[in-house]
Amino acid sequence: MKIAIAGAGAMGSRIGLMLHQSGNDVILIDRWPEHIEAIREHGLVADFNGEEVVAKIPIYSPEELIESQTQVDLIVALTKANQLDDMFHAIQSIITEKTHVLCLLNGLGHEDVLEKYVPKKNILFGITMWTAGLDGPGKVTLLGNGEIELENLEPEGETFAHEVVRVFDEANLNPVYSRNVRYSIWRKACVNGTLNGLCTILDCNIAGFGEQPVANEIVETIVAEFATVAAEEGIQLDQPEVNEHIAATYDPANIGLHYPSMYQDLIKNHRLTEIDYINGAVWRKGQKYGIQTPYCAFLTQLVHAKEGLLGAK
Amino acid sequence: MKIAIAGAGAMGSRIGLMLHQSGNDVILIDRWPEHIEAIREHGLVADFNGEEVVAKIPIYSPEELIESQTQVDLIVALTKANQLDDMFHAIQSIITEKTHVLCLLNGLGHEDVLEKYVPKKNILFGITMWTAGLDGPGKVTLLGNGEIELENLEPEGETFAHEVVRVFDEANLNPVYSRNVRYSIWRKACVNGTLNGLCTILDCNIAGFGEQPVANEIVETIVAEFATVAAEEGIQLDQPEVNEHIAATYDPANIGLHYPSMYQDLIKNHRLTEIDYINGAVWRKGQKYGIQTPYCAFLTQLVHAKEGLLGAK
Repeated sequence: MKIAIAGAGAMGSRIGLMLHQSGNDVILIDRWPEHIEAIREHGLVADFNGEEVVAKIPIYSPEELIESQTQVDLIVALTKANQLDDMFHAIQSIITEKTHVLCLLNGLGHEDVLEKYVPKKNILFGITMWTAGLDGPGKVTLLGNGEIELENLEPEGETFAHEVVRVFDEANLNPVYSRNVRYSIWRKACVNGTLNGLCTILDCNIAGFGEQPVANEIVETIVAEFATVAAEEGIQLDQPEVNEHIAATYDPANIGLHYPSMYQDLIKNHRLTEIDYINGAVWRKGQKYGIQTPYCAFLTQLVHAKEGLLGAK
Repeated sequence: MKIAIAGAGAMGSRIGLMLHQSGNDVILIDRWPEHIEAIREHGLVADFNGEEVVAKIPIYSPEELIESQTQVDLIVALTKANQLDDMFHAIQSIITEKTHVLCLLNGLGHEDVLEKYVPKKNILFGITMWTAGLDGPGKVTLLGNGEIELENLEPEGETFAHEVVRVFDEANLNPVYSRNVRYSIWRKACVNGTLNGLCTILDCNIAGFGEQPVANEIVETIVAEFATVAAEEGIQLDQPEVNEHIAATYDPANIGLHYPSMYQDLIKNHRLTEIDYINGAVWRKGQKYGIQTPYCAFLTQLVHAKEGLLGAK
């Protein structure tokens, strides 16, 4: 399959590399000049579970890609949430009526962006439990195991979704065809919508937050806001299950000792966060549906204030 | 006048010293052994606008005071909010039917504590704009000018309130007899209920918070919660005026460069905060009246989480 990875950061590099290794015609698309240059010169260099793997995978900026007149069967969207619109605006000329998009971004509301560039029947959504780390331009660390759950947004997309599952399966990406990927996306957004913002604002890891007596009360309030808005979109979240799922992460034997990605983006690297696509998205959707989401609103505002205080870019 | 200062920290030392200097029979009550010992040995030592003042003022622990069988005309309450109940429980035997209490604590809801020990007609409330700093056991720095606004809670207390104004005036404490001290208390609580918690959670000074584009939106939401609860208690806060008053503090030429007292308590000194008597009090009152106060609730929870993370005592 001819596959473009739109956004070749850590996770994009992982998925691109594994699809390339299993024989697909993969290209990477990114906007980071040093990253593009390093991959062209030395290949994509991965620490793949302790083994060094070097892969010569073509990489383009969106502008170069248009010149090359490339067309693809599948675009895997893995940009930062706030770069999705820019990316698809830039690469829209490579999208044919047969091109499908698999959106693997965290967060909510990305269909509003993608529908501007791709017919809804050609859109697939998924979530990934794989991990990946970017060590520098052209270098990634890929440890452990994971899986990808995906589904077509519209019934017409089902045939192609199963084809993607077959191709991903050959690449050992452990795909699962989902019967309710939107439920899984909302459920994962609840995890990110609590741990990410709260650990960032409180300057702590997941276990540190979980030890606080107020942790469960805060989490339950935020999850309830997510659930009320999700219900308006036809998703009935099982709140007790989601709350327990989040509480389970506090265990140091689980991911308790980790600092969430938003913490690393903002507190460590002074980068803008994706809060507008998590709690901020619930807040916006809530306003649209006439639902109060004060905890999501306040957490979004606090994270934006912290971005300003740290001069995040 | 025979006056006891219950809680001889920085502000208690200032008011006790100034009342002592103008000829009143003042005693200090405190629970900090090093502070008591230092004042007994060297007197209360103050940097009073650049001049060293040493005052021999009697100081007692509550237990010593009871043994001394002292009785007073006026108790000025200046403990930490969370120590008020303990203090009055410990000194209740010195309170006669003629003893009045002037409560100068920041925050809300202290009448609920005081009414357990003093008839309502003997309670006065006030707010102070004086400042004071505690440099160590027995040592304070007292700079600048201020004033005290006070009022009786019940009509029967008015005569004594005017007597307190006379005595405080002789001590140059710039007292003003208020016709609506409860309004002033709520207005001041709005300032503390925004700047204190927000600068603490965001780890910034007042100007730093004020520079953020979200600052006004957060402040207005919190002030609206205070106002809705205050209205239930018969206080009609002028929200635009309060919002402007808070926004004016952002100016570095005003108090913008200051870190609020809660920041100093928690972030600098790892001490428990008074959040339960500010935003937490509005949250509790809101629950009592059936009013939603989610920003006050969430800010209270975040500050408690931060107390836990920093091991505050």
